[in-house]
Amino acid sequence: MARKLYERVGKQDNHRPSPFSWRARYALAHKGLDIDDHVPVKFHDKESIAFSGQGFVPILIDGAETVHDSWAIATYLEDSYPDRPSLFGGSQALAHFMNTWADTALMPAVFPLVITDLHANIAEDDKAYFRETREKRLGRTIESFAADRSAFEANLAKALAPLRAQLDAYPYVSGPEPAYADYAVFSVFQFARCVSPTPVLSADDALRTWIDRISALFGGLGASCLRLEEGVAA
Amino acid sequence: MARKLYERVGKQDNHRPSPFSWRARYALAHKGLDIDDHVPVKFHDKESIAFSGQGFVPILIDGAETVHDSWAIATYLEDSYPDRPSLFGGSQALAHFMNTWADTALMPAVFPLVITDLHANIAEDDKAYFRETREKRLGRTIESFAADRSAFEANLAKALAPLRAQLDAYPYVSGPEPAYADYAVFSVFQFARCVSPTPVLSADDALRTWIDRISALFGGLGASCLRLEEGVAA
Repeated sequence: MARKLYERVGKQDNHRPSPFSWRARYALAHKGLDIDDHVPVKFHDKESIAFSGQGFVPILIDGAETVHDSWAIATYLEDSYPDRPSLFGGSQALAHFMNTWADTALMPAVFPLVITDLHANIAEDDKAYFRETREKRLGRTIESFAADRSAFEANLAKALAPLRAQLDAYPYVSGPEPAYADYAVFSVFQFARCVSPTPVLSADDALRTWIDRISALFGGLGASCLRLEEGVAA
Repeated sequence: MARKLYERVGKQDNHRPSPFSWRARYALAHKGLDIDDHVPVKFHDKESIAFSGQGFVPILIDGAETVHDSWAIATYLEDSYPDRPSLFGGSQALAHFMNTWADTALMPAVFPLVITDLHANIAEDDKAYFRETREKRLGRTIESFAADRSAFEANLAKALAPLRAQLDAYPYVSGPEPAYADYAVFSVFQFARCVSPTPVLSADDALRTWIDRISALFGGLGASCLRLEEGVAA
């Protein structure tokens, strides 16, 4: 059965800047499901995904099924492959909270620190579209939005408090073993290091050991891409 | 087997201002365990709880066992009464994240909005101790800390985003049925309405229907106390 994942792509094919696409990748890997075809989708490219009836990636085609939205993909995989390792660590509802926390508390704290670099590190023919859509949403230029870096750093430090407390108590967000709650949170840090050469965490930050462990899962899935933080192409 | 709960008390015996004591009450009720003796403990009263080797409530005495700290009480109850309804909705680790989110994201957003009223509504002989300890922690007077109410209201609106998204998707934080993750979050709102006549949520806020449902559980446990928000003594 052919399995195809439409994913956001940045400056080149192994540059994957979307946290949501990373969640879909990790969900598939957790279930032990191979992807036969990765389809790179630029920000401005709405044509290649018009078949899905909406304008966002990731989109999974799994045989006869087409599913979009990273959370919908995760629940689809859990329901369709119940005999494979569970994605939700015993509670789909609480994993959903982690997913919304990653989207509504962590991502807004990380995004302002990397948006200027994100714009600089996508494909040249994507930049005008990216700037126009983001500046419309922000109500001002990317550069003026991102200007006060120290305020955003203080904001991130505050936003990370519950995650730090969780990883003081358990090896993974999900408990003794990693699962979707980990991937949802990890995806935001993965996004940041894929798009910016300036780390959002200091070199000795305790969260890095957890990030490194998630990154190493599934044959080093998180490391198998261009990470600007390290300044190297895998 | 005698079961005794040492709880924070405010201006009178049915005034219970501690979110942590509420968590212990709800955990016991969820397990269907009666409390034979409620021991009210004022803020400055360290003598009556010195036997526990530390200075905080809640403290549960369950037969021969003495347990302090609301999370430790919850895990103790789960381990000691495994045949009664589970507190953790399938994932103790993810329930722990909700507990830390309530402590490190929600409580700091609610606390500045009610601290002045909290000080006004505890027992007269507790006020000097409360002011001294809190002002030492805050590094300034309670009144100057709490002065910019509109900034704190904006901060709370932001902090509530993941909770709103969760309750858009599920009837309870824990999923189809309430459990400890709900009680941990609810306890912060219960704290606020027990100590302040000024609601932190508007009268038509969608979160109130969830708060009312948690409040009505276990024979109206959350309503069975003095709630200053309503301006009535139960």
